[in-house]
Amino acid sequence: MDSIPTKQDIEQAAARIRDVAHRTPVLSSRTLSGMSGADLFFKCENLQRVGAFKFRGASNAVLSLGEEEAARGVATHSSGNHAQALALAARLRGIPAHIVMPENAPAVKQRAVRGYGAEITFCAPTLEARESTLAEVIARTGATFIHPYNDWRIIAGQATTGKELIEEVPDLDVIMAPVGGGGLLSGTALAAHYYSPATAVIAAEPAGADDAARSFRAGHIIPSLQPRTVADGLLTSLGDKTFAVIRDHVRDIVTVDDAAIIRAMRLVWERMNVVIEPSAAVPLAAVLEGAVEVRGMRVGIIFSGGNLDLDRLPWMEASA
Amino acid sequence: MDSIPTKQDIEQAAARIRDVAHRTPVLSSRTLSGMSGADLFFKCENLQRVGAFKFRGASNAVLSLGEEEAARGVATHSSGNHAQALALAARLRGIPAHIVMPENAPAVKQRAVRGYGAEITFCAPTLEARESTLAEVIARTGATFIHPYNDWRIIAGQATTGKELIEEVPDLDVIMAPVGGGGLLSGTALAAHYYSPATAVIAAEPAGADDAARSFRAGHIIPSLQPRTVADGLLTSLGDKTFAVIRDHVRDIVTVDDAAIIRAMRLVWERMNVVIEPSAAVPLAAVLEGAVEVRGMRVGIIFSGGNLDLDRLPWMEASA
Repeated sequence: MDSIPTKQDIEQAAARIRDVAHRTPVLSSRTLSGMSGADLFFKCENLQRVGAFKFRGASNAVLSLGEEEAARGVATHSSGNHAQALALAARLRGIPAHIVMPENAPAVKQRAVRGYGAEITFCAPTLEARESTLAEVIARTGATFIHPYNDWRIIAGQATTGKELIEEVPDLDVIMAPVGGGGLLSGTALAAHYYSPATAVIAAEPAGADDAARSFRAGHIIPSLQPRTVADGLLTSLGDKTFAVIRDHVRDIVTVDDAAIIRAMRLVWERMNVVIEPSAAVPLAAVLEGAVEVRGMRVGIIFSGGNLDLDRLPWMEASA
Repeated sequence: MDSIPTKQDIEQAAARIRDVAHRTPVLSSRTLSGMSGADLFFKCENLQRVGAFKFRGASNAVLSLGEEEAARGVATHSSGNHAQALALAARLRGIPAHIVMPENAPAVKQRAVRGYGAEITFCAPTLEARESTLAEVIARTGATFIHPYNDWRIIAGQATTGKELIEEVPDLDVIMAPVGGGGLLSGTALAAHYYSPATAVIAAEPAGADDAARSFRAGHIIPSLQPRTVADGLLTSLGDKTFAVIRDHVRDIVTVDDAAIIRAMRLVWERMNVVIEPSAAVPLAAVLEGAVEVRGMRVGIIFSGGNLDLDRLPWMEASA
C-alpha cells in the first residue's frame, strides 16, 4: 500500500485482523454523559489485545507482508505500546520481531516485549542512536521496518477502530481521538470520511506536547521538542503521511493540561471501572473542560489504551 | 414471590430489568487463561450500573412492587453496593429510598448513596442499633424492606447474571462466583440449574471470612463472626433463603487468603484493564492458587463489582 488508504484498503485490513484482534466493546456512562451534557460512547481499545489500539495496525502490517518478506521478520523502534503490539503480531504469524529500545526503557516494558518473544536491541537514548541501531538491525536481518505510525498499513489498521465504532453507534456528530504521531487520528479520520462523512473528527492533545495542534494551524509539520506531559503515549511528532490525512480530514485539534487529563482518567476508573492510561483520557478531558463544544451532541470517544504502572498512579504522585 | 424462584421468575426478572440494567460484556484474557490452564470467561458486573451486580436484584425487587406499596418507598440497611443499587433503582421508579447506615460509614459511600437521591438514617455501628433503626424507619414511612440478599426477588434478579453468561458462552464446565451473603451465588446456582444443568457452580470465599464454606460442610448456617479480609463485600453471613439454594445447587465452596486475592485483583487490572474490587477477585484467586481443579475446562467467572477507594489500593498498603 503506497498511498492514502482507500475504503477497500480499510475493509481488507478489517478482514485481515478479524481473527486475531478483539472487536472491543463500546461502553457508556450516564454519569459522564450527564457531566458533559452530551451522549458519550466510549470505544474501549484499552480492552484490545496488548491493551491498546496499536495491535490493529501492527497486525495489519504484519499480515500484509508476502511470505518471503515476512520470513525475514519485522523491526521497529519503540519502547511503548507499538513494540508490544508488533511483537505479538509477529509471534502470531510465527516470524521474528526486532525491537530497538533505549537502554533506559523501563524494565516492565522490556519484560512485556520479551514476553511476546521479540528480540530487543538496546541503544543510547538519542534519536541518532535509535536510527543507526535500527539501520544496523535491518541490514543484518533483512527485517521489514514497521514504523509506529507513519505507514499506510498501520494507518489502515488503526482505521478499523473508527469503522467498528461507526457500525455500532450510527449518527455520531463527533468522534474524538488523542493525537501523538497521528496513526490513530488519521485512521479515525479516514474511517469517518468513508463510513460516516457527516461525522466531524476532532483530536485532543496535551498542552505540554501540542505540536500537532500547532502543526494543524500552521499548515506544516512542527516537530515535538522537549514535550512535557503525563500522557507519555503522545510525545511524538506527526509524520508526513499522518499529517497529510489529518490536514484534509480532521476538523480541529484542541489541547488540555495535565491536571485535567489526570482528573478525567480518574473519573473513568471510578465511574466506568475500566483502566485507561493518561493518553487515553485526553479527549474526555477536553470535553469536560469545555475545550470542545459538544453539548447536546452524540460523541464517540476512543479510549486508546490502558497500559501504565499501577505502582505509580498520577493522582498519588501529585499528592505525594 | 414467596418461594425459591422458578425458571419463570428468573425470566420475569430478566424482562423487568432489561431497560434499566446493562447487559454486561463477557471478556477473556489469553494471559489469564494461559496461567490457569483453563478457558476463562469473565462476566463483567463491575461494568454494571452502580458498578456491581447488586443493581440487578435491587431493580427486580423495586420493579416487583405494586403501585401502592411502591409509593411508600423502600428501605434497607447497607453501607455497600446494595445501598447504592437500591437508591438508584428507587430513583428510576420515582419512589423514596431509605438507607440505614452506621455513623462510621466512609464519607465516599455516604456521598454515593445521597448522589442517587436516597435518604440516609445513621445508627450506631452495632447489629442491634441497625435493626432497631431500620424498624423505626419502616414504622414511620411504611417503606418495604428490601434485604441485601436474603430475599427471593433479590435472588431472582442476581440470577440474570448467570443466565446472560450461559446465553453468551454455552457449554461451560464450571461457573464461579464469590460468596458473602449468598445472593449472587444462589442466583447463579439457580441460573445454571435451569439453563445449563451440566455446569457445576463453585463458590470462592476469603479464608478470613469462611463462614459460607464452613456452613456448607456443616449442613447448617454458621454465622460470620469477626471476619477479617480485604474482600470487604464478603463479610456477611448466609441467610436461610440463600443457604437453602446453595446447599442444594452448589458443588463446592473453596477458600483463598488475602495475599492471593490481592495478586489476582492486580493481575486483572494489569492484564485486562478493568477495575475490580477485592471481593470480585476471589474466584480467580482460587483458580490461580489451585484451590479448585479446572485445568482443561471452560470456566465462567463472575466479576461481581468494581467499587473501591482509588487512594487506598491494597498493593500499596501492603508495601507501605
